[in-house]
Amino acid sequence: MYRTNTCGELRLANAGQVVTLAGWVQRTRKMGGMTFVDLRDRYGITQLVFDDSRDASLTDRANHLGREFCIQASGTVCERQSKNPNMPTGDIEILADSLNVLSESLTPPFTVDDNTDGGDELRMKYRYLDLRRPIVRANLELRHRMTILIRNFLDARQFIEVETPILVGSTPEGARDFVVPSRMNPGQFYALPQSPQTLKQLLMVSGFDRYFQIAKCFRDEDLRADRQPEFTQIDCEMSFVEQDDVLDIFEDLARYLFKEVRNVDLPAKLRRMTWHEAMKLYGSDKPDLRFGMTFVELMDTLKLGKFAVFDSAAYIGGIRVEGCAGYSRKQLDALTEFVKSQQVGAKGLVYVKYNEDGTVKSSVDKFYSADDLQALKLKMGAADGDLVLILSGDNANKTRVQLSQLRLKLGDELGLRDPDRFECLWIVDFPLFEWSDEEQRLMAVHHPFTLPNPDDIPLLDEHPEQVRAVAYDFVCNGIEVGGGSLRIHDGKLQEKMFKILGFTPERAQAQFGFLINAFKYGAPPHAGLAFGLDRFVAIMAGLDSIRDCIAFPKNNSGRDVMLDAPGYLEPGQLEELNLKVTLDEKQ
Amino acid sequence: MYRTNTCGELRLANAGQVVTLAGWVQRTRKMGGMTFVDLRDRYGITQLVFDDSRDASLTDRANHLGREFCIQASGTVCERQSKNPNMPTGDIEILADSLNVLSESLTPPFTVDDNTDGGDELRMKYRYLDLRRPIVRANLELRHRMTILIRNFLDARQFIEVETPILVGSTPEGARDFVVPSRMNPGQFYALPQSPQTLKQLLMVSGFDRYFQIAKCFRDEDLRADRQPEFTQIDCEMSFVEQDDVLDIFEDLARYLFKEVRNVDLPAKLRRMTWHEAMKLYGSDKPDLRFGMTFVELMDTLKLGKFAVFDSAAYIGGIRVEGCAGYSRKQLDALTEFVKSQQVGAKGLVYVKYNEDGTVKSSVDKFYSADDLQALKLKMGAADGDLVLILSGDNANKTRVQLSQLRLKLGDELGLRDPDRFECLWIVDFPLFEWSDEEQRLMAVHHPFTLPNPDDIPLLDEHPEQVRAVAYDFVCNGIEVGGGSLRIHDGKLQEKMFKILGFTPERAQAQFGFLINAFKYGAPPHAGLAFGLDRFVAIMAGLDSIRDCIAFPKNNSGRDVMLDAPGYLEPGQLEELNLKVTLDEKQ
Repeated sequence: MYRTNTCGELRLANAGQVVTLAGWVQRTRKMGGMTFVDLRDRYGITQLVFDDSRDASLTDRANHLGREFCIQASGTVCERQSKNPNMPTGDIEILADSLNVLSESLTPPFTVDDNTDGGDELRMKYRYLDLRRPIVRANLELRHRMTILIRNFLDARQFIEVETPILVGSTPEGARDFVVPSRMNPGQFYALPQSPQTLKQLLMVSGFDRYFQIAKCFRDEDLRADRQPEFTQIDCEMSFVEQDDVLDIFEDLARYLFKEVRNVDLPAKLRRMTWHEAMKLYGSDKPDLRFGMTFVELMDTLKLGKFAVFDSAAYIGGIRVEGCAGYSRKQLDALTEFVKSQQVGAKGLVYVKYNEDGTVKSSVDKFYSADDLQALKLKMGAADGDLVLILSGDNANKTRVQLSQLRLKLGDELGLRDPDRFECLWIVDFPLFEWSDEEQRLMAVHHPFTLPNPDDIPLLDEHPEQVRAVAYDFVCNGIEVGGGSLRIHDGKLQEKMFKILGFTPERAQAQFGFLINAFKYGAPPHAGLAFGLDRFVAIMAGLDSIRDCIAFPKNNSGRDVMLDAPGYLEPGQLEELNLKVTLDEKQ
Repeated sequence: MYRTNTCGELRLANAGQVVTLAGWVQRTRKMGGMTFVDLRDRYGITQLVFDDSRDASLTDRANHLGREFCIQASGTVCERQSKNPNMPTGDIEILADSLNVLSESLTPPFTVDDNTDGGDELRMKYRYLDLRRPIVRANLELRHRMTILIRNFLDARQFIEVETPILVGSTPEGARDFVVPSRMNPGQFYALPQSPQTLKQLLMVSGFDRYFQIAKCFRDEDLRADRQPEFTQIDCEMSFVEQDDVLDIFEDLARYLFKEVRNVDLPAKLRRMTWHEAMKLYGSDKPDLRFGMTFVELMDTLKLGKFAVFDSAAYIGGIRVEGCAGYSRKQLDALTEFVKSQQVGAKGLVYVKYNEDGTVKSSVDKFYSADDLQALKLKMGAADGDLVLILSGDNANKTRVQLSQLRLKLGDELGLRDPDRFECLWIVDFPLFEWSDEEQRLMAVHHPFTLPNPDDIPLLDEHPEQVRAVAYDFVCNGIEVGGGSLRIHDGKLQEKMFKILGFTPERAQAQFGFLINAFKYGAPPHAGLAFGLDRFVAIMAGLDSIRDCIAFPKNNSGRDVMLDAPGYLEPGQLEELNLKVTLDEKQ
């Protein structure tokens, strides 16, 4: 051992002990004949003192230490004259009598400090230095702590962690697979799993009863902000359960994590909101409940044959922005620009200001009478001083989604989205299918294994779009943290689902034959759920991005800029795999 | 919940309770007017009774249950008339008053029993049924339990689990990489990690101090028996430590696991044997210490100018097989055939029988005098009744390896390798390099990051083959369960190693530039170790093969026969990846 103690543990009670520490030079200061070195390791910072009058040559060596040198030093723990109450070790210092440079350091390309001067690109290239910053390391320590808590929680409830393979078969349904050429099976490819979905269902068929896995998943998608090609899921499945059983156990898990990690008490029973209600009130299947501004439908109130835009609309909805009647022209223009941006896609924004002095000013004054706007005020539950913002459109849910984006923007601007408050809920009763304009067919909202609501099964043939799924999402602060469903365990119903989703029986058999066959041997009713670990850690850490909860993340082009991966193969490697890159032919 | 209790928990104390169970039909028996159903779930088996005189129609339905039907049944817990002391639930049965078939089952292709009639191929194809067998599930439960114990042990000692990426860069040094084409970076490939070696070293540079990860690793090797293309490693790394610190902590981990899992007490301090001693005494760097039969070198004793084979040998070694002088001609021929097999590759086997009656019979009687053979007896420490077996050859270590195979075979035949005894030790002082006939250059015995023994550094330039590594393996019962080393943390020494291993500076920079650069910023002394989890579980479970410790293993062609993976891609997938399979052109 190069040390007797870490840099985080010595206290006044240790005074007089001779110790050896090892770590990195955070900074050095020379004050008169004394040189002070802040020595850092994972556990903290301890001050070393070199006294010129005791050992001039040793102190001279200390004076030549650079930032981030890795050193070892021995000495005696002494009480400090000027204590630092902001550091756990601030009462003591080590009067050094030996110094050993373990490795020198070049000047780091950015400061190794919570408030670094390094930009994103540079930090990623030198990620090994970025990870020395306590704030980044704390995120990974939190991630570790959460996985330990999660595993022990689930273990205590009879869940078994089972590792499922990373080299599986390709299932082109859903997102795009990463594939792996097989040298031993020429011309054939493995795929990396998008999730262990089918394998965990097989484990239920196997009678594992309660399974979990903190599992790596892979999706070859064009990376939108804050997506990673590989991500980690807390993946769970249970047999012989109903929806309430699943929701109860996983909200207990969430409650336990929030308490242990953040000392936050979630309510004894989380709110359960139907998808339909969430869309109606928040225009989102992951509503942020940290603030109100719920939607009010205004078809009856404003479709009066007076304003062509509203008269032709299939949906008109408003939100009340409390106390914001004073918004300036400029502020309102910015909001209008926002809703008309490509990202949101609305045609325009209608506002009505109910001023503190009782006057009303709106962008539709020329269409509506004062009485109309008073009726609106009543309907909106608005008071003097409030601002009402209204969107309309010819597709109700699309317009709701636009209004939701406006609501969240206002929440941000008004500081209503406190990162230290946590509002969690379940969204239930999702639709089973959604129409894809792109594919011109029905797609599964979750995946093809989701159980239709038994009450809606008669609708499957004629009105599949009306069928509800027994599916649920766990939402926190406007973010979907997890989701799952009861699964189909009846081979015949599963085959019917594949048919509705446009699979030929042959394709269903080729891709999911193993599951369809497994269901012929006494499949139990089962259900499951997966939390996004990266996302969960980010929420707990109060971070906007998942990237800083991942040790070695990839950038938006899927590159690891530190490793400089991906890269080109040697020709022999391609040949062994019977592969040729066709890039040149195309260009 | 489909049940009030599991099939493993009801006892006499529960008599009179009305319960609901769910599970699989293990077997049904009709005895007079009673039908008995053994209901199985993960937790055990409980007997259901259907009484014809109470409910004829219910009993009739029970009579039509098939093996592996998944059912739910309710009834009253009753004391059994004929108790079964071999089952935890054997004192009770459930007098059923309702029955619900959750899913029927086809007749399984093999019996779902510890002693199944299914062959390997069939079991793998229907792995989801194979996993219902309690003996197979127990292995995966053990695996889960071990990972929970390991994580909590390491967590308590300040190790942080950090997930490293699965999509990394290809490093053609070492085994063959699996590669993953990148669609977003056309023509470029990721590789799957053979181990997190370089990334965990970077975490040490980052000051993580103590890292671990239960990590998936990948090697595209031709699969020898009991190798898997993907396998799992308990991967650890520590900073500011010497070899003894690493060995102490990980033998504590092993001691903890053996105690918790098998109730076996490993000695307070494990034996540490040098590689040189292990080769000399056992002809193996992973000696099985459950039995003796250590090698005796016989150059002085038998190189007497009397027997040309021995006279020209560079090595002659013998083992004493206690009490086996009575081996028959046939037995000795079989052993001779074994050592001459391709697998072993010796030229022949010499035997000397020291019979109980004092006579001596050997295959070299015509070359050696009675006195010579008495001298041999003394040297071998043999007694009357013992058999001495001797191999010779022109390469000492190759011959030792052959003799080792003979020793292990005899250990097996004589029942000296008790799966319930555990003999663990450390092998230390490995050579740093070994000569590769195939590559015609020195190769790293462990990997290029292993620290040379500081005492041997002067030999690096002139006699690299004599340099010892600060490397160690954890061996149990003749199996290498783990291994590791102190690492180089000095960029200059690392560059020198790459040079000795035949890397051009450009290639070293291209492949390991990130690590060489990282070492310029204050790298701490560090060391690590990885245990093979699959192997460790297999030893604890008393299994010869790792395959039954893995939920969904691959066969010797790297195929998952259940998933039927790998498989062919759709043409669009290849096109998106700018790839073409060149198989047709070649054939």
